[in-house]
Amino acid sequence: MSILITGAAGFIGCNVVHRLLEQGHRVLGFDNFCRGSCSNIETALTNRQFSFERVELAELASFEAAARSFHAFEPITEVWHLAANSDIPAGISDAQVDLRDTFMTTFNTLEVMKRLGIGRLAFASTSAIYGDLKGAVMHEDIGPLLPISNYGAMKLASEALISAAQESWLARAWIFRFPNVIGTPATHGALLDFVRKLQRTPGRLDVLGDGTQQKGYLHVTELIDAMLHIRERAAEPLAYYNIGADDAGVTVRFMAEQVVAAAEPGAAISYGEGNKGWVGDVPRFFYSVDKLRALGWKPRFGSAEAVQRAVQEIVAQEHCV
Amino acid sequence: MSILITGAAGFIGCNVVHRLLEQGHRVLGFDNFCRGSCSNIETALTNRQFSFERVELAELASFEAAARSFHAFEPITEVWHLAANSDIPAGISDAQVDLRDTFMTTFNTLEVMKRLGIGRLAFASTSAIYGDLKGAVMHEDIGPLLPISNYGAMKLASEALISAAQESWLARAWIFRFPNVIGTPATHGALLDFVRKLQRTPGRLDVLGDGTQQKGYLHVTELIDAMLHIRERAAEPLAYYNIGADDAGVTVRFMAEQVVAAAEPGAAISYGEGNKGWVGDVPRFFYSVDKLRALGWKPRFGSAEAVQRAVQEIVAQEHCV
Repeated sequence: MSILITGAAGFIGCNVVHRLLEQGHRVLGFDNFCRGSCSNIETALTNRQFSFERVELAELASFEAAARSFHAFEPITEVWHLAANSDIPAGISDAQVDLRDTFMTTFNTLEVMKRLGIGRLAFASTSAIYGDLKGAVMHEDIGPLLPISNYGAMKLASEALISAAQESWLARAWIFRFPNVIGTPATHGALLDFVRKLQRTPGRLDVLGDGTQQKGYLHVTELIDAMLHIRERAAEPLAYYNIGADDAGVTVRFMAEQVVAAAEPGAAISYGEGNKGWVGDVPRFFYSVDKLRALGWKPRFGSAEAVQRAVQEIVAQEHCV
Repeated sequence: MSILITGAAGFIGCNVVHRLLEQGHRVLGFDNFCRGSCSNIETALTNRQFSFERVELAELASFEAAARSFHAFEPITEVWHLAANSDIPAGISDAQVDLRDTFMTTFNTLEVMKRLGIGRLAFASTSAIYGDLKGAVMHEDIGPLLPISNYGAMKLASEALISAAQESWLARAWIFRFPNVIGTPATHGALLDFVRKLQRTPGRLDVLGDGTQQKGYLHVTELIDAMLHIRERAAEPLAYYNIGADDAGVTVRFMAEQVVAAAEPGAAISYGEGNKGWVGDVPRFFYSVDKLRALGWKPRFGSAEAVQRAVQEIVAQEHCV
């Protein structure tokens, strides 16, 4: 198969690129290097099965032109749309960020696919579409869907467009509702923040919130395992699955302690107040992965082991910078 | 209060304009006359409490400028955002239609409100956000939300943005999920289609589908009663309510027969096949209005009486054209 990956130079995108190349696919990557970085695809660029183009996906004409020129001699059979804003607070203070990077990239991906006749779409959605369900278990068919961040809103909007497209012209769609994903190359997130804070102010780690906020974490390698499993096994033309750790998660306190232990044993951790890190951040929640388990997949690592692995990788990454 | 109404020259918009003027409010109307028409607000324009400006709401800069110049001498305290595409099939064949007219108008409404510091928003959503729930009762908290038209998708996207805004800076929001609304000035819909078809081909009415498709209908005067009731009574800062007839609805066959009886008794009705009128049209569904009833409101007319009234009004309207 010949697969287009948007956001190919981002954290998850570059990991997907590597995996699909390993599987023997022809891979085309698009990225605007806004959050993704060229260094993330350096290795892939040495593979002749990989092509890359720097494209602004929010601009339909240039996106279409880039896809069309590749498609003309190597027909694209599937798209993995992973490009999005990943800075939730930035999208809350300026709604244009998620409009452009999270929503219009999806709108344009669908437009390009429709025009080129590409019928298979894998999409990176998020647990943020569920908003704050006040402790209710987040399973795939729950309602109401009232996101509390523009990021969650624009991912829900993207799912809605994909659903309408699937009713009308899109043959297959796989919607993956991502959990908190960790690993390398880390570009954002609490673990990277902690490691960098310790580098800036050695001996001391200031944590936002009281440290009791609890979430499930999945390692990026397992996220990709799960996506490939769903793509292979789900029979429904519009498949939507939560992907996540099969446990109640770990606390911010646990993560801070793991980072200190790996990066600078003995550093003092000080906590703030409250269990919400910022507006739009959902406190401790329970994320059901029963549907995915019923399809025959569960993670090998729990949240704690995923965090421990990611901490080692991120500390190593930051020491190389 | 000083209230901005978007889509003020449309079917529902102009009825809202008249009602809010009757209640003594200062009303500012915006419309691009794409689907709305100047004749719909002729009467209102004679009222000194009403101001109108032709504005392209999908263009943020001109929308903001128009709102800001009014706001400077008469502060806007509330917005009723009613502007949207109303041609569902048009939005399915060209996704840009609902992107621009259904979604970007909402995005820009929120941006303008945020910039001007307006904290109260009433929003016209739709039963189309629910998609095809295969016979399940559509209550406000049901899931999953997988719309089957771009119209439904972009209304769900709008709700999601409003939800995120309410979490962050918007004081109050009322989301009204509209049913099929009928009455005058009719601009689209099955009843108007039937009346016009009979005018074009007297003696014969061709109906799309087999006539068994069944929906609830609400008369526009009752829709406005319900919206005002919710705005007055709902205590929650983000209030979302289905509005609709409190019955299982009437069939397309019933509507065709009512139109024939009123416009041209004795004309022959011929039906097509299947019970879906077009892609994106949801067949017979059951729409719960329990939440609205619990808030103390129910319609005086059933679907059948609403249809009968609207047929009389639309026949009269078309004979005046």
